[in-house]
Order: sequence, then structure tokens, then C-alpha cells
Amino acid sequence: MSAADNSALPAPHIGTSPSGPLGTIADVAGVTVGHCTLDQGVLQTGVTVIRPHQGDPYLDKVPAAASVINGFGKSIGLVQVDELGTLETPIALTNTFGVAALAQAQIRAAIRANPQIGREWSTVNPLVFECNDGYLNDIQALAVTERHFDDAFDNASTQVASGAVGAGRGMSCFDLKGGIGNASRVVDVAGSGYTVGALVLANFGRLPMLTIDGTPLGRVLAERARAARAARPAAEAAAADASVTKPEQGSIIMIVATDAPLDARQLKRLSLRAAAGLARTGSVYGHGSGDIALAFSTAYTVPHAADFITLPPLIADAHLDPLFRACADSIEQAIVDALWSAVSVTGRDGHRRLSLHDSLPDLAQLLKSKS
Amino acid sequence: MSAADNSALPAPHIGTSPSGPLGTIADVAGVTVGHCTLDQGVLQTGVTVIRPHQGDPYLDKVPAAASVINGFGKSIGLVQVDELGTLETPIALTNTFGVAALAQAQIRAAIRANPQIGREWSTVNPLVFECNDGYLNDIQALAVTERHFDDAFDNASTQVASGAVGAGRGMSCFDLKGGIGNASRVVDVAGSGYTVGALVLANFGRLPMLTIDGTPLGRVLAERARAARAARPAAEAAAADASVTKPEQGSIIMIVATDAPLDARQLKRLSLRAAAGLARTGSVYGHGSGDIALAFSTAYTVPHAADFITLPPLIADAHLDPLFRACADSIEQAIVDALWSAVSVTGRDGHRRLSLHDSLPDLAQLLKSKS
Amino acid sequence: MSAADNSALPAPHIGTSPSGPLGTIADVAGVTVGHCTLDQGVLQTGVTVIRPHQGDPYLDKVPAAASVINGFGKSIGLVQVDELGTLETPIALTNTFGVAALAQAQIRAAIRANPQIGREWSTVNPLVFECNDGYLNDIQALAVTERHFDDAFDNASTQVASGAVGAGRGMSCFDLKGGIGNASRVVDVAGSGYTVGALVLANFGRLPMLTIDGTPLGRVLAERARAARAARPAAEAAAADASVTKPEQGSIIMIVATDAPLDARQLKRLSLRAAAGLARTGSVYGHGSGDIALAFSTAYTVPHAADFITLPPLIADAHLDPLFRACADSIEQAIVDALWSAVSVTGRDGHRRLSLHDSLPDLAQLLKSKS
Amino acid sequence: MSAADNSALPAPHIGTSPSGPLGTIADVAGVTVGHCTLDQGVLQTGVTVIRPHQGDPYLDKVPAAASVINGFGKSIGLVQVDELGTLETPIALTNTFGVAALAQAQIRAAIRANPQIGREWSTVNPLVFECNDGYLNDIQALAVTERHFDDAFDNASTQVASGAVGAGRGMSCFDLKGGIGNASRVVDVAGSGYTVGALVLANFGRLPMLTIDGTPLGRVLAERARAARAARPAAEAAAADASVTKPEQGSIIMIVATDAPLDARQLKRLSLRAAAGLARTGSVYGHGSGDIALAFSTAYTVPHAADFITLPPLIADAHLDPLFRACADSIEQAIVDALWSAVSVTGRDGHRRLSLHDSLPDLAQLLKSKS
Repeated sequence: MSAADNSALPAPHIGTSPSGPLGTIADVAGVTVGHCTLDQGVLQTGVTVIRPHQGDPYLDKVPAAASVINGFGKSIGLVQVDELGTLETPIALTNTFGVAALAQAQIRAAIRANPQIGREWSTVNPLVFECNDGYLNDIQALAVTERHFDDAFDNASTQVASGAVGAGRGMSCFDLKGGIGNASRVVDVAGSGYTVGALVLANFGRLPMLTIDGTPLGRVLAERARAARAARPAAEAAAADASVTKPEQGSIIMIVATDAPLDARQLKRLSLRAAAGLARTGSVYGHGSGDIALAFSTAYTVPHAADFITLPPLIADAHLDPLFRACADSIEQAIVDALWSAVSVTGRDGHRRLSLHDSLPDLAQLLKSKS
Repeated sequence: MSAADNSALPAPHIGTSPSGPLGTIADVAGVTVGHCTLDQGVLQTGVTVIRPHQGDPYLDKVPAAASVINGFGKSIGLVQVDELGTLETPIALTNTFGVAALAQAQIRAAIRANPQIGREWSTVNPLVFECNDGYLNDIQALAVTERHFDDAFDNASTQVASGAVGAGRGMSCFDLKGGIGNASRVVDVAGSGYTVGALVLANFGRLPMLTIDGTPLGRVLAERARAARAARPAAEAAAADASVTKPEQGSIIMIVATDAPLDARQLKRLSLRAAAGLARTGSVYGHGSGDIALAFSTAYTVPHAADFITLPPLIADAHLDPLFRACADSIEQAIVDALWSAVSVTGRDGHRRLSLHDSLPDLAQLLKSKS
Repeated sequence: MSAADNSALPAPHIGTSPSGPLGTIADVAGVTVGHCTLDQGVLQTGVTVIRPHQGDPYLDKVPAAASVINGFGKSIGLVQVDELGTLETPIALTNTFGVAALAQAQIRAAIRANPQIGREWSTVNPLVFECNDGYLNDIQALAVTERHFDDAFDNASTQVASGAVGAGRGMSCFDLKGGIGNASRVVDVAGSGYTVGALVLANFGRLPMLTIDGTPLGRVLAERARAARAARPAAEAAAADASVTKPEQGSIIMIVATDAPLDARQLKRLSLRAAAGLARTGSVYGHGSGDIALAFSTAYTVPHAADFITLPPLIADAHLDPLFRACADSIEQAIVDALWSAVSVTGRDGHRRLSLHDSLPDLAQLLKSKS
Repeated sequence: MSAADNSALPAPHIGTSPSGPLGTIADVAGVTVGHCTLDQGVLQTGVTVIRPHQGDPYLDKVPAAASVINGFGKSIGLVQVDELGTLETPIALTNTFGVAALAQAQIRAAIRANPQIGREWSTVNPLVFECNDGYLNDIQALAVTERHFDDAFDNASTQVASGAVGAGRGMSCFDLKGGIGNASRVVDVAGSGYTVGALVLANFGRLPMLTIDGTPLGRVLAERARAARAARPAAEAAAADASVTKPEQGSIIMIVATDAPLDARQLKRLSLRAAAGLARTGSVYGHGSGDIALAFSTAYTVPHAADFITLPPLIADAHLDPLFRACADSIEQAIVDALWSAVSVTGRDGHRRLSLHDSLPDLAQLLKSKS
């Protein structure tokens, strides 16, 4: 079977809960996503923006919380999310050196919408996450600008692309091409149906660790790579070896959306379950990997100006397990989706990341042997 | 193949790093473990004590740190460990309602050894972890007493039993018999060899989640259980169904020892990697599960009375990945070991937990089909 | 003016908000407190129990959160409070080595009330805080038993004594007699009146740090003590000097109750403001001091068995400042109250702590000179 | 006495430990500070840069840790500091909307010094703190640019100005003019002398809370302000009233340097003691105030490329109290210094902040009445 055939191969379904109709984070009603992709030679990078609802997130803040699983990361905005339990801007994703430009863009957009910010009102907390795409992308070019945020924002819709797009353009995952991945799950909690959606920016892992739905594909891939190197001239093989044994410099950002009525404390619990889905793909939260999960609920908003906050009845903690499983499954599925959707990309200095499908023409057989 | 044959079946080896010679936490030099098992009809419980070194842990404290992955737990001692980064008593494990007796026993033992405690010196911080063994054990009997701590302490040696022993006597795991599990890994870090050892008290998980080395055995077991129930009289089957769909009330305590020179901050990072090993077995850190990992280093001690603390050269954080993998692999292996080692046990009210081997006579075939 | 006259001297009123009618934590409707005092020669210790409401706290849990300001402490129960944001037992206070007995007592009391605990239901999370009263009390005697918890519980009422009573019997504060202190404040938030009540177990601080309502009384007291030592024989003076320069081994437990509708995240914010009140009395959260604040709300409860939790409208975070000030003021006032209310006590080995009034016969003048 | 006379009035000395020779954070050997001040009509803002040592902080990282006392803040960099316990850039301070520009500038400076960053090496973690100077400064102008960072960096020396300079230019404190404050303390720990230095960016507090060395000056000032308003036309007075009763929108950044050999865990403990110094000035860590303390040690560095990290003997935790007191005293003194050093400033829309000296011509008498 060729790589081309692979692209018709459906990704394995993780867990036992069904996916939502779109299979993306946009299965959570109101959530939209926009990408702005920079694909210009040595510039292989971009911006992804997640809008939690279609209103003004400053006026109607979204309950949210994050878990920093490994804090080798340069995000901005988490200090205030941790204190107040709300988002007040869209969620922006980009490369490590694009955080500042996007924070600036978020501030300008908030001021445009609400000129009282920084005057009669307090300031605004821009939320920007990042991964380091420096293997493919000339990250030192600081190519991401404020305009790219605006473009991504304007592109936001419920049609959410995965793969080498937006912030995911230059990302690597398990030494393969990574990027944006999506998934969703629908679960029953105390007689009501709720949706959990996930969007990941997957840029972590070394090849030998890759595990898909329990199948240790990384071992197979690593063995083949070793054999290939053995067949090459010594110097070239040594260079390849060095590349493979380099410690991880990746990261993964995991955004979890849900329509389940949860408060910030519960959303923090939910966000941590992303660590379980991540681990199942082979990650041990490597030292150099900024592994951060953020969960938000669309079940209600917290008005900017209000004396009291009225919440809908919240799901009792004792009923959270289906949502916890949905979070872990969605994250694992979204990582698989990132690998599944990404195309091979060549970037700076001739660096190239093969897609999973191009790397493993016999992917179907390898996965089938397991079930 | 019968269950008896299973017991000769070696457990799958998790990951690619080799085990230490004993395959237990005692592969970390100086660490010893003692069990005291109560196997008396409705009392199916016990105590396990881990001594980090053979000296007085109050006079020579051990660098340590913990990660509370899910805090549905009633341990004592973690507040001070978090502040000071040291242990000053052995680590004691027991059932949820035995914590108080063991804390008292730890205090008495510390005072016996150092009569200045609570007088010229400050007090002592007993460290006791727990899981709820109430399915098999009559936990309301509060059967664990101070004497059981002393017995377990006196039994401590490098010969560490796994399975339905000590604190593990009454524990359940994936609706099977759980208990104490052990494992170790030897890894190379910057040219030196270090050992990571793990001991778990495994009492978590519902059957359908069970995954061993990537093989979703729980799905098989759950399917068979469902079929078995279908063949039974309706009332009995309904009761069995209710039992299976009950939310998790378990927990897992994961103790990680290493001879690698790490400080408390690094040990906290290490301890969190237990979450990765745990997730690979199927856990999503269920709401009702107290999932806590504690890591300590034997590379140096912190003297009780000293003006300055002299540390050995510490491993640079950039070199922690092999230890992170060793932690995750050891924890996963230790959970497998708990299932592998435990025998079937009958406790209160006729409650019975089958061992993995008794549940799956064809375990060997099921695991083989994967590799 | 003599010490006897001092006892008629009203304590300075901290801050500008008015006190509630009782001036104790019981100004928060539903809250009651009971003491059990052991005053038997070398045994100078006891138990204090705070009931957040008059119902069963396991069936109707109370929203709560804690801030560990300095974690040199041996409390039990905070891990679960941090995860779930609720209390499910009364709050018990005692000496460091009495925690285990009280945890056991809490478990037994919970089982008596709800025999399903540890059987059909999950277990119970006993909450016990402690300070080290070992200077006055023979703490090694482990004199506190389960019965003392029951006695304190049975004594609970809205008539709350302060001073050398209950858990406060053997406590020291600024090298003076400390113990239980109470205070309350009534504040307006968005047009509604709310009460914040505080109960402290004050056992911290060295003499020179003592500050009352901004007046550095400790400097005066320390200067006098120095002069007194200078007048004594050399050996005796040296011993006294050594005692004064010993590092702090104290602690303070600060319980904050409010009828304001707050969730656990907000209560965590509120609890941290206890650190401000504590600092104003001279504390810098000394190394050896377990400084822990816990805040709970009586505005609603979280039922043990419920699918959904209905909350009243919560105060918006932007309106929390009056409650923050009330918390800091109440805590400072409660510490002053502990010093003001405590009588001089003699305990083990002839150790004696003078009350503030006995130490400073001219207290009234010293405080007046400031205003 | 006139305000001019006040400027000759020495600030009260907080606590009993002596100051270092400079009375600034630069008393910690190696630490330098540079300001870049924008004083251009409606632009009243700036940048302050603290260099922990004179070398390259990326190659030789500085052990550090932070305490988020109230997380209403938009700093960047703390996630990684929390994980790794090191700084790898200078510390930059500016207004809330200048964070992005400074983060960008830090990245560019790091790349200039080490072109391997983001290529062979991992990325860099810029550390930027902020307060909201929007009352005096036209913060929406986003006037702070990368060049201002470079200017401040180039200005760094041991001659550290306080007051309305650098990032402090537009800041308000207790409704007076705030800004940059400095202080230091020298203490003896286990026979050795160590220095603790503090630099604050003080922008918090409402007038009635102001307390200097225990004297509640704010009550006096508030009473006078109330009387002054009463004498004004009604509309003007109402506007002034509204201004006074507005909730806090300030913040304070507290940087603590020390030459004491401490690791990141200990530095976190140290940093929290800033909360005690802050509280003594009247703060209760208001909802809208981003109150963040960061402590670093100059006693050693952590090399970027090293297999093992060699630490000097660390001070035992039991000896930290003198450093804790020095931290609290330095922070309180530095806040007083900010108020003492700042001149009155007029900014956007005719907004004006009077200096403490201009507000209280009789400051000397008010403070004297206390001692």
C-alpha cells in the first residue's frame, strides 16, 4: 500500500464513546477556529485562533482553567486564568517567538472592541500559547506579526482544518510532521448528553516513543530508520543518529472545550486528564516539552460588569468520570489526527519532516495486526 | 492454558530500559520494604513500610517531593513534604481508616529514637498514604493498629513481596485483585548509570479500562463478563451490572525511589511522570481515585542539625528524560506486577476479587496476539 | 495600672469595619464552636471543634478552600479539600501529636452518622489542624484521645470562649500565652451585608516581633526582658537569652467563615488574605511555623448525593475587596483577641507563659501613646 | 514644614537589621539596574531592567522562584521559572501593554548573544512583569517599544534611582505617586553575613490603607481629602468621591535578590515573605492587583550546557528566618522608598498624582508622634 492509499485509511477510533458530527473542537456549539498559515520557503509557521463563543469574550468571559503538565513553555496569560478562572480573549496559538506579536494583537483587538480598557476599566489578559517550530521554520525571523492574528481571527469558522496548517504549519511530532489535531466525544452524564472537543498543537515526542491506539509504531519506525542509516555512508548516518538521540525540544498545547456546566475548579480537574491522553501516545512529558492543557466551558459566561454571577446547575464532581474519559480520549484522538492530517513539509536549511503516511506506507497492516 | 500455567508466564517487559536485578524498589541501594498482612476473614488489610535508608530518617532526612494527580485522598504528611522537600519518617501505606493509627505509630517510633522531639526539637511529620480496600476488607472495623506499623517496619528487607500482601491485601484494581506491585529500571544519564525503583499500592480502575503493555485486555474481559451475566438469572445479572457501572472508588499510591542525585524540585518533576505510566494502564485519574506519586532520592541526605547542606553535583534538568522514562516505565511495570502477583481473595460479605490469572486463563494468547 | 486593670481594657479595634454582635466566628449564622480543655499539671492541651452548620456535614458538604502560607505543619485533610473544594467533617484543632486521635474520632463519628461510609459510599475525609504546644504541654504523652473530640463536639455552641481554652490551652504566641482568638466583621458588598468570622489557634512568633494595631509592643517588651536579664546572675541570663534567640517552632491555624456566597476558588483567594492580617501582627511566616488558613462559606451546601449542584448567585470577583479586608482585619483582631483573652499558664518542667496583661501592666499607656 | 523640607526628611528605617551601603537592590554584588523613562505629555511610562549578574544570563542561569500572591497580572515567563527554577534573561518591568514589546526585545537580545537559540539550542524564556499605569499614562498608545528595553539595559549600573523613573514613571500607589522603590538589609545567618536587596514597582493601594512603619497615615490623608471635598462644589466633590471609592486596579511587582546560597525551593519560600512586607503597608492583596514576588540568588549560576550542576553548600532551612525577616523588611522599606522618592506627576487627561511629600507637608510630625 502506498502513502497515497494511506490517506484514505481512517484513523483508529480511540476509546468507546462516539465522536461528535464534525470530529473537531467545533462540535462544542459556539466554538470556531481560524488558521493563518505562512508557507514561504524558510518560513513555515502560522497562527491559530480559537474563539470560545461568537460574542465579545471580554464582556462575556468564559470559565476556564489550565494544567501545566510540564512548564518548559513561554505562554502568556495563565497567571490570571489561574487566579480568576476565566478567559477574556480568544485563545491564540503560534510559534515560541510569535507570542509577543499575538499578545499585542489581542490587546489591540480588545481595545478596539472596548475602548474603556486601560482607561475606565482595567486592562485585558491576552492568552497566547506556543510551541517551538524551529526545526522547519526560521523562528529567528520573528515572522509572525499582529496582522496574522487578525487574519486567523477573521477566518474562524466551524470548518476546522487539521494538519500542517495555522500554528501547526512548522510543528514536528515524534520526528514526523505534526501540527493541528482535532477530535470530539459525546458522553452521557446523569442523563444528559455533553460534548467534549479537543484541539491540539502537537510538536512533541521522539520517534521511538510513538504509540497509536496502543500499537508501538515508533519501535517499528525507529528500527527501520536505524537500518536505513546503517545502509548510508558513515558521516551521513552519524548525523542522522545525532538527530535522533537529541533530547526533545517540542511541546504540546491541548485545548479542551465542553458544553458541560463546570466551574473553574472542575475545569482544572478536566484539563489535567489531557495528560492521560497524551501519555497513551508515548509521551512522558519530556523535560524540554511545554505540555499545557487548558479547558473551558461554554455552558455559561461570566459578565464583565455584574455584581453577582448566576451559574447553571453544575455537574456534581462524582459524575465527572465520563467527561474525564472523554477528555483523555479526545486528546489522544486529536494527536492521532494531527499525525494523520499533516502532509510532509520542507523548511529551513533543507530540513524536512515526513508525514506519518509517507513514513509508513504499510500503516494499515501495522495497525491491523493488533486488533 | 490454565490459570496455574499463567503463574509461570512472565509479565511483559514495559519499555526498552533493563530492569534492575531484583525488579523491585529495593534495587535502589539502601531501600527496604516490610509488610504486615491481616488475613482474618472479613479483615483483609495490612500495612507496608518503605524505609528509604537504613539510618534514622529524622536525623538524616531524604530529599523528596510529591505530585497529587487526583486529590481524592486522605494521606497525612504531604503539606510539609511540599514545603521542605524532605521525608523524616519511613513511608507507610495502609487502608484509608488506618492512617491515624500509623501516624501515631510513626510519632511514637520517632520519639523513641529521638526523645528530644517535641521538646528541645520540633515535632515530626509522619508520612502515611492510603487506599480504600473497603470492598474486600471490613474497613469500618478500624483493624489496623500501631503494632502493625511496628511489625511491618521490623519486617523490612530487600526481599520485597508483591501482590495481596501488606497494605495491598484487600486492594482491588480494574475490578480484579490488586495490591502491591514493584519494578525498577536502570538508565544511563550523562555517562553514569542510575536506578529508578517503583512500588505501587494499586487499587484503581474499572475492568473495561485495563490495558497491559498497550493491549486493551479490559475490553476482552468486559465482553466476557457481559456474556456471562447474560447467561445468568436476571436479578443476579442486574446486580453484577450495577457493580460494573459503579464509579471508581479506588486510588493508587506510587512511590518512586532513585539513586540519581536530584533535589526536591527535580523530584517533583520526576514524580509527575508516574502519571504517564498510570495512564498507559487505562486510568484517566478517576474522580474518586486518590492518585498520588512521591519520589525520593537516596543520593544524599539532609542532616537534621546542620547550618549548611552540602549536595552532590545534581543532574542537569536537560538530562532528566531517561529518568522520566524510567519512572513512567517502572510505574506501568509495577502496576502490571501488582496484577500479576496478586492471588484471588475473598473478604467481607462474600466479596471476592479474582486474580488476573484466574480471570484470564488464556492471558498468554491474548498478549501474544499483539507482539 | 496593674494586670488586673488590663483585663478591663478593651482590645483596640482593627480596621474600620464594624464587628458582628458576638465578635466571634459564631457571628456567621450556623457556625458553632466547642472546646475540650485538658488542664492537668504537665498536660496543658485540648481540642477545639468548629461545626460549619448544624446538619450533617457529610451529607451537606460546605464549600471551602485553604492557603498553606508556610507548610511546616502536620494537618490532615487538605489534599482532598484542595481537589474537591468542600469540607465533609467538622474542623478539629489540637496539638501536633493529637491529630491522629482526632482523625480517628472524626471517622468514627462519620460512620456512626452514616453507616454506608466505607461500604456502599466512599470514605470520609477527616480535617484536623494542629500547632505544637510542647513548650507548656507534655506533648509526648499523646494525651489527646478520641473522647476529647466527642466532648468538644458536644460542647459546640454560639458562645465561643477565647484564650487558654480547648486546643489553645498550651499554645504560646510571641513568647507570651497564646491560644484561641475570635473576631468578626460585617461588610457591605454590592448592596448586601455579609459577615466574615475568624477563629485562630495562635501559637507563633517571637517576642520582639509583636505588633498590635501598628504599635511595635514587642520592641518594648524585648527591651525590658533584656534589661531584666542583665540584672540576673550570668548563667540564668544566658539561659534566658538562648530561649529568646531560639528560632520559632510555632504555628497558626486561621479559620475564616463567611455567609457570603463564594465558590471554592474564591474562598481560596479569601483564605490567602489571612496572611495579610497575620503579617500586620509581626509575623514573617517563620520557617518553623505551620501557617495555614482555611475559609468556608455557609451560603450553600453541596449535597453528598446529587447529580447537579445548584449554587446561589455568587459575588463577582470584582466585588471581593471588602471581604478581603474583612478577612485580614478579622484575623489580626482574632490574634489580638487570643493574646488579650489568654491567662498565664504554667505547664511541664515549670515552663510558664505570661499573659499579655501580666507581661505589660502599662499596656493601656503603651497603646494610647500611638493614637 | 513644606514639601520641600520633607524631601530632606529621612524615611523611617523598617525593622532592626541594617541596610547595605547603597540601600538598593544593587547592594547584592553583581546586580545592576537600568531605567528608560518616557516623560512626554500623555506618555508617562517606561522600562526598568534588572540584570542579576554581569555575564550572559542565558549561558549562566540564575536560580530563582516566584510567588503569585494575587494573580491579576499579565507577566510573561513565570511558567518556566516555576518548572525549572532559573532565570535566563534579565528581569524587565514596564506597563501592562508593554509586555509584548519587551518580550520581543528580550528574545532578540538573547539571539544576538547566542545565535544558536531556536536552532541548535532550545528557545529562550523572556521574563517581563508589568503594572497598569493607565491613570497617568496613555496606556492605549502602546508607547513602549523594543528600543526602550535596550536603552534601559544599556543604562544598567549599580547607581539605582528610585521614584517616578523607568517602569515607575506612571505608577500610582495609595492614590499617591508611586513607582520604583529600593531597599536592602544585611543579616547574619549561621555566622556569615548575607545581603537581601529589594526593588519594587509599586502601583497598588487606595489612600485610606496607607500605613508607614505602623503609622496609619492613610486614615489622616483620607480624612483630609474628605474635608477638602466637602469644601468643593458638589459635582466636583462627587467625582472625587467616585474616584476614591473605585476598587483597586493596581499591582506590585517585588523583586528580591540575595547573595545567600539558596535553591529554587528555598527562593520560593523567600519570595512569599514579600507578602508580609506588603501587608504591613496596608495592602490586603486587592482583587484587581497583580501582586507578584520573584526572588533570585547570585550565589551560583546554573550553566546552560552542563551534565551536572555543582551547588555551593546551601543554607539549611532552619536558618532561613533572618532572611525571611530581611525580605519582609526590605519590601516594606522599598515601598516606603517608592513613595518617598517619587515626585508629583501630571499625565493624560490632566490626571495628576501628588507625591507623598506634596500631599503631607507635615509628614515629619505625623511620623514623629508615633515613636
